[in-house]
Amino acid sequence: MVSYEFEQAMRLEQSADEDLFNATLDPRWTIHEGPINGGITMALATTALRRRLTTGHGHDDPVCVSGYYLSAAVPGPARLRTEVLRSGRTMSTGQAGLWQVDARGREVERIRVLATFGDLDAEGEHVATSATPPEMPGLDDCLAAEALPRPLLEETQLLERAEIRMDPATSGWLEGVPSGLGRMRAWFRMRDGFQPTPLMLIAAVDALPPVAYDLGISGWVPTLELTVHVRARPTPGWLRISLSSSNLAGGLIEEDAEIWDSTDRLVAQARQLARVSRMSPVAQQPEVAVAAGA
Amino acid sequence: MVSYEFEQAMRLEQSADEDLFNATLDPRWTIHEGPINGGITMALATTALRRRLTTGHGHDDPVCVSGYYLSAAVPGPARLRTEVLRSGRTMSTGQAGLWQVDARGREVERIRVLATFGDLDAEGEHVATSATPPEMPGLDDCLAAEALPRPLLEETQLLERAEIRMDPATSGWLEGVPSGLGRMRAWFRMRDGFQPTPLMLIAAVDALPPVAYDLGISGWVPTLELTVHVRARPTPGWLRISLSSSNLAGGLIEEDAEIWDSTDRLVAQARQLARVSRMSPVAQQPEVAVAAGA
Repeated sequence: MVSYEFEQAMRLEQSADEDLFNATLDPRWTIHEGPINGGITMALATTALRRRLTTGHGHDDPVCVSGYYLSAAVPGPARLRTEVLRSGRTMSTGQAGLWQVDARGREVERIRVLATFGDLDAEGEHVATSATPPEMPGLDDCLAAEALPRPLLEETQLLERAEIRMDPATSGWLEGVPSGLGRMRAWFRMRDGFQPTPLMLIAAVDALPPVAYDLGISGWVPTLELTVHVRARPTPGWLRISLSSSNLAGGLIEEDAEIWDSTDRLVAQARQLARVSRMSPVAQQPEVAVAAGA
Repeated sequence: MVSYEFEQAMRLEQSADEDLFNATLDPRWTIHEGPINGGITMALATTALRRRLTTGHGHDDPVCVSGYYLSAAVPGPARLRTEVLRSGRTMSTGQAGLWQVDARGREVERIRVLATFGDLDAEGEHVATSATPPEMPGLDDCLAAEALPRPLLEETQLLERAEIRMDPATSGWLEGVPSGLGRMRAWFRMRDGFQPTPLMLIAAVDALPPVAYDLGISGWVPTLELTVHVRARPTPGWLRISLSSSNLAGGLIEEDAEIWDSTDRLVAQARQLARVSRMSPVAQQPEVAVAAGA
């Protein structure tokens, strides 16, 4: 009965051991011509843990999820090992690890996840949110993925699954002119019509190009750690994703993400720590550092 | 040779099993007349993992740490179970759990931690930080802990270890007049002269009163998840801690923390998700919600 690509990517086979699941990482979710997108591996580990926890508990929604990236996941078979840490009245917590067999036949862990689940509909209505939706042009005035440089586009299979429309104001890096402000904004949806779910938000926070590109960084910016807070059940329709960074230092960068749904509700907040692998000539110009510090 | 209170709180006994350590949680670090401060338990789990990882590796500094709180830690004996997940060239990752035996004789986990360690001195010098140090009055114009309501002061042993001087602009909640903006700022140091270390920052991010108090929340605001990024080795002297929240919704609140050292360097960024247990009458007044949403 699986019909949508995201649901296919989350498909698990239960093993005889209730803590253990099997899956296949699909090359349709790769980036940089190789690794599976980190949002997808984290969502898959979360799916396995949810399956394990909801056997008799009923806490269906991921509320917060933290993933520590250990090695690059690649297309092919994977195993997910789960452990229940706590089953509470209103929330449950557990961990999951995603493992693959490497070229030398050794089992290697790709990501280790801790996650707490609850019921997003069960909580109170009181809201005191000072965050505001991103100010950005409408869909038709944003850049489609086709605006990306051809090599980047061709090596990113993910962009054939997810439709991304980028705010031109934060897309100067595409022409070698990053703003230096550490901002990126885009519209986001799945191309095949799959509508947002709490689990899909976990993948979406890591689907845009790294905000580091707007600071003049190029190349791979591998995530060390990613934590996502799912704060409300998203409504159907386009999502807006807003990335920002306030601190690039010591070879590492913090990237904050907000996801807003079609009713202007803040549905997810996320933060990751990533490694800056190399600087472009732009980033090495002192004036960019000055602009970024402004 | 242990001399400082924080070092005493981090003291571990290695067991015959290299993954297992014993410790004693000291009542000097309690809050709310009972539980041990969550920053201290997270720092202790991190200490155990560091001890396990640095046996032959040399990655001494916690770079990012995520803790999931499972039950309230109390004074008394504790066990720490560690697991090495990855030993890399420049960084190592592992997990640790802190366990205690409860009143019914069952072993119960208090906190599960994932953490990555590296060398804060080994990374590049390039910095593009747009974050700015908190604007707040000097030490003499801030409020000492003695300004806290006597019940709060007396039930918080932590405040006899840590010296906190609060910015009056974010202390209106002390008199029942929270600003509704979701901000808290304070100077911070250990009273006994212990100088900041990367590990101490992990405890410091959770040492202030919850930022939720500035939104009119009262009572216990238990942390579900806390992630700390240590971004630079702190210099000796007073630290400034700046808390903010942009999203209180669905019974949960996000609290962001920045720690700045005496040279105006951003040394730690942290975010936690906490449960809002009850609203004060102030928070239930519609005008406060409006102010917070402004």
